[in-house]
Amino acid sequence: MELTPRRLRFGGDYNPEQWPSDVWDEDVTLMKQAGVTTATVAVFAWARLEPYPGLYDTAWLDDVLDRLHAGGVRVLLATATASPPVWLARDFPDTLPVSENGVRLEFGSRQQYSPASATYREHALRLVEMLAQRYGEHPAVEGWHVNNEYGCHVPYSYDEESAAAFRTWLQARYGTVEELNRAWGTAFWSQLYTSFDQVEPPRAAPTFRNPTQLLDWDRFGSDTLLALHRAELEVLRRVTPDLPVTTNFMGFFPHTDYWAWAPHVDVVSDDAYPDPADPLAHVRLAAQRDLVRSLRAGQPWLLMESAPSAVNWRGRNLPKAPGLHRVHSLQAVARGADGVLHFQWRQAEAGAEKFHSALVPHAGPDSRLFRESVALGAELAALSDDVVGTRVPARVAMVFDWDSWHALSQPAVPATIDYVDTFLSWYAPFLRRGVTVDLLPRDADAARLAAYDLVVVPALHVAADDDLGALDAYVRGGGHLVVTYLSAVLDPDLHARLGGYLGALRDTLGVRVTEIAPAGRAVALVGDVAGAAGEWNDAVEVSTARVVAAYSDGFAAGDPAVTRNEHGTGVGWYVGTQPSVALLDELAARWLDEAGVPTLLTEPVDGVEAVVRGGLLFVLNHTGEAVDVPLTSGIVHVPARDVVIRPA
Amino acid sequence: MELTPRRLRFGGDYNPEQWPSDVWDEDVTLMKQAGVTTATVAVFAWARLEPYPGLYDTAWLDDVLDRLHAGGVRVLLATATASPPVWLARDFPDTLPVSENGVRLEFGSRQQYSPASATYREHALRLVEMLAQRYGEHPAVEGWHVNNEYGCHVPYSYDEESAAAFRTWLQARYGTVEELNRAWGTAFWSQLYTSFDQVEPPRAAPTFRNPTQLLDWDRFGSDTLLALHRAELEVLRRVTPDLPVTTNFMGFFPHTDYWAWAPHVDVVSDDAYPDPADPLAHVRLAAQRDLVRSLRAGQPWLLMESAPSAVNWRGRNLPKAPGLHRVHSLQAVARGADGVLHFQWRQAEAGAEKFHSALVPHAGPDSRLFRESVALGAELAALSDDVVGTRVPARVAMVFDWDSWHALSQPAVPATIDYVDTFLSWYAPFLRRGVTVDLLPRDADAARLAAYDLVVVPALHVAADDDLGALDAYVRGGGHLVVTYLSAVLDPDLHARLGGYLGALRDTLGVRVTEIAPAGRAVALVGDVAGAAGEWNDAVEVSTARVVAAYSDGFAAGDPAVTRNEHGTGVGWYVGTQPSVALLDELAARWLDEAGVPTLLTEPVDGVEAVVRGGLLFVLNHTGEAVDVPLTSGIVHVPARDVVIRPA
Amino acid sequence: MELTPRRLRFGGDYNPEQWPSDVWDEDVTLMKQAGVTTATVAVFAWARLEPYPGLYDTAWLDDVLDRLHAGGVRVLLATATASPPVWLARDFPDTLPVSENGVRLEFGSRQQYSPASATYREHALRLVEMLAQRYGEHPAVEGWHVNNEYGCHVPYSYDEESAAAFRTWLQARYGTVEELNRAWGTAFWSQLYTSFDQVEPPRAAPTFRNPTQLLDWDRFGSDTLLALHRAELEVLRRVTPDLPVTTNFMGFFPHTDYWAWAPHVDVVSDDAYPDPADPLAHVRLAAQRDLVRSLRAGQPWLLMESAPSAVNWRGRNLPKAPGLHRVHSLQAVARGADGVLHFQWRQAEAGAEKFHSALVPHAGPDSRLFRESVALGAELAALSDDVVGTRVPARVAMVFDWDSWHALSQPAVPATIDYVDTFLSWYAPFLRRGVTVDLLPRDADAARLAAYDLVVVPALHVAADDDLGALDAYVRGGGHLVVTYLSAVLDPDLHARLGGYLGALRDTLGVRVTEIAPAGRAVALVGDVAGAAGEWNDAVEVSTARVVAAYSDGFAAGDPAVTRNEHGTGVGWYVGTQPSVALLDELAARWLDEAGVPTLLTEPVDGVEAVVRGGLLFVLNHTGEAVDVPLTSGIVHVPARDVVIRPA
Repeated sequence: MELTPRRLRFGGDYNPEQWPSDVWDEDVTLMKQAGVTTATVAVFAWARLEPYPGLYDTAWLDDVLDRLHAGGVRVLLATATASPPVWLARDFPDTLPVSENGVRLEFGSRQQYSPASATYREHALRLVEMLAQRYGEHPAVEGWHVNNEYGCHVPYSYDEESAAAFRTWLQARYGTVEELNRAWGTAFWSQLYTSFDQVEPPRAAPTFRNPTQLLDWDRFGSDTLLALHRAELEVLRRVTPDLPVTTNFMGFFPHTDYWAWAPHVDVVSDDAYPDPADPLAHVRLAAQRDLVRSLRAGQPWLLMESAPSAVNWRGRNLPKAPGLHRVHSLQAVARGADGVLHFQWRQAEAGAEKFHSALVPHAGPDSRLFRESVALGAELAALSDDVVGTRVPARVAMVFDWDSWHALSQPAVPATIDYVDTFLSWYAPFLRRGVTVDLLPRDADAARLAAYDLVVVPALHVAADDDLGALDAYVRGGGHLVVTYLSAVLDPDLHARLGGYLGALRDTLGVRVTEIAPAGRAVALVGDVAGAAGEWNDAVEVSTARVVAAYSDGFAAGDPAVTRNEHGTGVGWYVGTQPSVALLDELAARWLDEAGVPTLLTEPVDGVEAVVRGGLLFVLNHTGEAVDVPLTSGIVHVPARDVVIRPA
Repeated sequence: MELTPRRLRFGGDYNPEQWPSDVWDEDVTLMKQAGVTTATVAVFAWARLEPYPGLYDTAWLDDVLDRLHAGGVRVLLATATASPPVWLARDFPDTLPVSENGVRLEFGSRQQYSPASATYREHALRLVEMLAQRYGEHPAVEGWHVNNEYGCHVPYSYDEESAAAFRTWLQARYGTVEELNRAWGTAFWSQLYTSFDQVEPPRAAPTFRNPTQLLDWDRFGSDTLLALHRAELEVLRRVTPDLPVTTNFMGFFPHTDYWAWAPHVDVVSDDAYPDPADPLAHVRLAAQRDLVRSLRAGQPWLLMESAPSAVNWRGRNLPKAPGLHRVHSLQAVARGADGVLHFQWRQAEAGAEKFHSALVPHAGPDSRLFRESVALGAELAALSDDVVGTRVPARVAMVFDWDSWHALSQPAVPATIDYVDTFLSWYAPFLRRGVTVDLLPRDADAARLAAYDLVVVPALHVAADDDLGALDAYVRGGGHLVVTYLSAVLDPDLHARLGGYLGALRDTLGVRVTEIAPAGRAVALVGDVAGAAGEWNDAVEVSTARVVAAYSDGFAAGDPAVTRNEHGTGVGWYVGTQPSVALLDELAARWLDEAGVPTLLTEPVDGVEAVVRGGLLFVLNHTGEAVDVPLTSGIVHVPARDVVIRPA
Repeated sequence: MELTPRRLRFGGDYNPEQWPSDVWDEDVTLMKQAGVTTATVAVFAWARLEPYPGLYDTAWLDDVLDRLHAGGVRVLLATATASPPVWLARDFPDTLPVSENGVRLEFGSRQQYSPASATYREHALRLVEMLAQRYGEHPAVEGWHVNNEYGCHVPYSYDEESAAAFRTWLQARYGTVEELNRAWGTAFWSQLYTSFDQVEPPRAAPTFRNPTQLLDWDRFGSDTLLALHRAELEVLRRVTPDLPVTTNFMGFFPHTDYWAWAPHVDVVSDDAYPDPADPLAHVRLAAQRDLVRSLRAGQPWLLMESAPSAVNWRGRNLPKAPGLHRVHSLQAVARGADGVLHFQWRQAEAGAEKFHSALVPHAGPDSRLFRESVALGAELAALSDDVVGTRVPARVAMVFDWDSWHALSQPAVPATIDYVDTFLSWYAPFLRRGVTVDLLPRDADAARLAAYDLVVVPALHVAADDDLGALDAYVRGGGHLVVTYLSAVLDPDLHARLGGYLGALRDTLGVRVTEIAPAGRAVALVGDVAGAAGEWNDAVEVSTARVVAAYSDGFAAGDPAVTRNEHGTGVGWYVGTQPSVALLDELAARWLDEAGVPTLLTEPVDGVEAVVRGGLLFVLNHTGEAVDVPLTSGIVHVPARDVVIRPA
């Protein structure tokens, strides 16, 4: 995906169909004033483009694209398939999704289609074909924005057509019903199937549903949405082979496994909506930036949607304090984005998102928000030469895995934990030291792992033998590996690893885990490192490992909590508890030191980031207070909600 | 509605069909002992009156009415349509209501009918006709109690017949589908309709439903219930033109817009059930009395239902402490009631409300509760000459609006707030100073507004241009107006007011509101008035207004929080935050002073009220401690849960 | 049910169908090592035994039983009917249960059958017949384990077949619809029925459903499950008249009235899963042991299921600390169990309960858990001679009643309370003093009551005249009776007792209760006993009783809280509030002293138990600290999570 001239993109979703055409004139004028490079057009315009089945109304879109072109704004044209018109629901009610309780959901919000519906797909592809034929050569159009936030509200549907598709998917996965029975462990609770025809989606049931059925349903959901997406791509690549495509991901979104999706787009784009009320929003956001950058191995990505200020869909929607959106935007750039786009250009006057902020707010151009929009556009333009197309170096990696997320989100597990929050708790100490982290899928092979000096694996609940083998090879070859509680407990069929969990990592780490043990109260550690930890104390037996810290109290007193094992030419650590923030900072410092990873900050600081990209050092202060940031290169003063950018 | 002799009514729902006839004899004896003037009979008697379709059994009711008449008790006869018999559900299952998830609700509780059901209506009207014909001339009957608590459990039903009625209602409202599209903002999220036939109720959907569709569904629900009510009235007024009618309202009840209902009844009656566990119950109750009094512009009203002690339908149902029900009863009288009735006369032995207290409790006449009943009956009789038919003067008004309530109760708003609680927080400072408040609908015209020295408009989220114009005219003509955050944000179609919200009030108040801003923590104010405020700090730009207080901290530090604008010969205040109780007392004192409104209390006191009616001053103490109440006329001592009544 | 030799049973559920047969060899070896006497086989094996309708596969079970027999392990053979195969769901979808919202529940968890389904029953009985015919004479088999945890997930179903069965049940109970109308109080809310055909289950309805209908639905549910159970028993007793039968109860389980069930089994068995995170787990557990022992009047019972460590179905599943499961196991023995079995022998590798602990954990035999299993097996073997077959003496009884539980769990009651937790709060003071308590049904007659020196009746909300008469006779005959608030409020039709609640107990206790009164805050008592109490203060009027304590504050100040009445040659106490733990200890000491009941502890101690069985004194310490237990026979030191057993 290529912009000419090479500039950081700035702009957002543009929905002119919501406004009379006299507003369109002002739009282009204001876009110029704000330095808008890019508009994403027609995301929710299907009903406007095809008000009756097969009857297209495109004159308005011709007009809009011409105006944008005249104004120098380039267009990521949406395929408009994210929200079908009412006639699809009325003529084909079977396209409407069904809940796990059998409720067929009604038209009147958005995304009201069953992802497995052939009828929906047929009508969607016909629309895509029309748009590609009509606009593929329009001079304003530089790429396709396919659908929108796949799976956001309807990741799967429990209707009959979906059930049949699920059976087909299962047959492809397992071949025989015997293999399905083995994988699902149907000998338990008398669940044996004798035919694929007997299998249904995991609808509401008397009690806990089969865990592997649930996980396969999640996998089927992601695969079905991806198949829909690929069907649109097939049309676009046939008709407009030279136009790049993207679809907006949603960062840590449970229902689509973006490791599987990313190879199919030309550029990764992402929607990110930090909550100003969340004190850890900057950590979540930094990790999300790192995730989307990692999905295509560091290729620059696009922030497709962000909010200049408040969103509308939380229970309490705080505005962003002045300056904060600029910090968020520059964070995205520092972490690999080649553009900062927004939902949306002009705040809607009506509808369900009228309280979602926009570059042009309800108050109009005479407003703080529009003035900040103009300033941000200018700043991004000035940064373009240095950063566009450059990569973000990282020497630490962390494994993030959708299967583990799903498995830990099921009921009937040792304890209900939030996988992403747990992941972030292990990510944060690196952020606090100015250490950039790449994310990896759990099936990263040894060669890919070897690119990093330190690999951290938090709560990798599900892993295949090959995954564990690659981690073992990484350590044997000199890598530094940290593995935490709840890791390598299950194989990809969700069968427990017997004999002490961990599988091949038992050798790597020199320990066996004999019991998974959430604790009834916080525990404390003593040893080489000491301090507080959370309510978890797995039962660990060491073989070749050395005990670095043990529990000092509770019924696990004296048992190993943190172990270190030299293995081949590398080192494997196991941590059987959730250390406190301070203790984790201390452990992370030790791991970084052992692995020889340099840090940008001399000590951990909260609310501040330091990242290098394109020869520039970005020091970002997310907090409401000025901070003297202790960089290894000297102290730098960063005012509240501000950014210092200087040569690295 | 006229009582002869003119006495404050006392009594309650009387359900003799629950008891054998020997109990009826005791009932009349005890009623005499307690001074009961009025019984409401047959509210839930449909199944008893018509056990088989079209087959009536009225002998028992003849007997009951004759006994009551002989005992000197007058009757508000119910039309008995609130809870249809089981045969309606079995012969016509389509009359049963359907939930938004498509669940058809079962017989076995009460009110199990779809308000739009023509079959229900037909059978209900046949029953009403029979009752009117049979009892219209009975000497005991002095009026009709129509249905019961309309919409309490089933404000609307999502069945097909209701859907068709909704489409008819929309067609009447909008004329064309284009106008519906404009009003609903269906250009957003691809929701354009090309025919009214495509529109359905807002059933369960993938995500946020169209806000204007939701609001229209609320309006349709209220209108449909009112149409049902008017159909009964049509029968009654035709057959018994001389008998007055009422139906029991429920105060701050969301699903029926009582401003629209009140013109259709002859007298407003109300059900009120304060929670003894709620420390603000007396505030809520006072405001509810003021609401129902205001619905027909100050005409005396009837407390149709109250509980002598505990109710049964909360999670924890505290009894009223001795004396407290007397305080509540005299509060109703002081605030305009011409009668205090109860649910119910005799506590039920069985059924879902057997734990609801009554004038005659389970324990029988030898009980605190019955002794208090007797005393209350006597006290009301003694007060009758002074107060019956008199009005309650008020010089302050507050605007209360059902559309705003609905709009703020929707998801996808700036913050989920409780509209009624917010309203009460602005009402309370007047209550604490002994200042009586009338309530007004948002479409009160300038003449109606001009009757008041001070008008307070809290969180009037939805307002029409005309509404704002009348408020502006009120100020220009010398009125004092206070407007708070979240006001005049949307028009009646829920479209945002552009350019700084507020619409015409921008001139009235001399400010623009450029961002709606819930805050992440409590804020503080400095200036002419200073103190703490809640978690809200709208972005306000002043034009002609003067800043009375500004934020002292947080990211809005220095921005205007409270402004005052001289406009025409009046004054308009804007308050962009939620002041603390103390700060609001201070502001209210200033507003009252500026507007020249006298107060009965020299300083704000919690838990105490002072109201004048009929030449009497009622000083009520809702608390468990004696209070020396600082009246402007001198200090008066009021024991715990007691009332002092003296000439005003 | 008889074991030869007479040994405490040890073992658990054995599900070999989950494992390949090479694991079976290790199983028998490890069972011998652990001293396993008993395996419960085939609980969830229906699908394995009958993979296609009518086509049986039993060779594997032949093999397993032969191996167990060869290994000296005896078998409680399951009838395998608890979880039907998928073909039943697919061929007969009407067998699937339906929720109160009309959702038909899907196959894929367990217990997916409507208890009233004739089709399910027919297929279940055919399976039972086959198993009984085939294995009734197998030398390993010593008894039947019928179905499993009846009603655990599907206590009733709202389908049409169940509705018809409910009508039949009602007709049998009430004879005429007039009697149903009287019992249900259908005169209230216009609910009169004119035919049984009009009655439906209490499906989702607009508001509170008829309370007696709800209670009858609960009773019907329990009766329907019991009828299913008895149908299996009929087959088993016909084919294998010499084999004893049991089914595993679940202690305080709401949906099956075990007083009604227990007469039908040969031995009571129970599943008990204390939560290690619950500080009151030992109290709940002790009471549960006492309940199941009392169900067949003290006959030794069997702990059918327990977990050596963590379960899997709570939100957070803590392991048991080392030693704790031994304390739980010996507690069961001390309180009358003749065996300690487990779910399950070998921890599942897959499925919904793979994280449920087992005698052989995922980690294998080289683990703390298996070593503890071996030690427990040996200890139970050593205890056998002393305790097997012996009874546990008790001189205090408490009344526990399923109807009262149901009634207090309904909405529209004075306050939502947890009946079992309330019961336990009155049980705990006896546990703290080492006083063993038997439980009694509410219909225990005077002779049965007379076996006890003290009878405590907490919150017996529902009681028949005969029940109250027996309690009165008990006191008149010299018994000591304690009755608490919320008792004897309703009769078995849930009609209120008029005139002051309590019915015949008004004489027994010398008081009337004129108001049920949850309080808004904690109250305090003064008098002969004094101290804090909870948020409850019923209005009590004394007739012949003496006031022992009165409320010192709140609006009930001065009113009686605790009363004592000499009646005949006995004493009746009424307590109208919920005393604090300390106050209850003081009251219990007084009651025990008056009734002449000896205690094993000289003062109350938390977390410790002392019980006598079979000439042995068991002193159990559930806490994590060593305790010097002040026995009346002298102080005994019990280490943390340990047990001292010595001659009584």
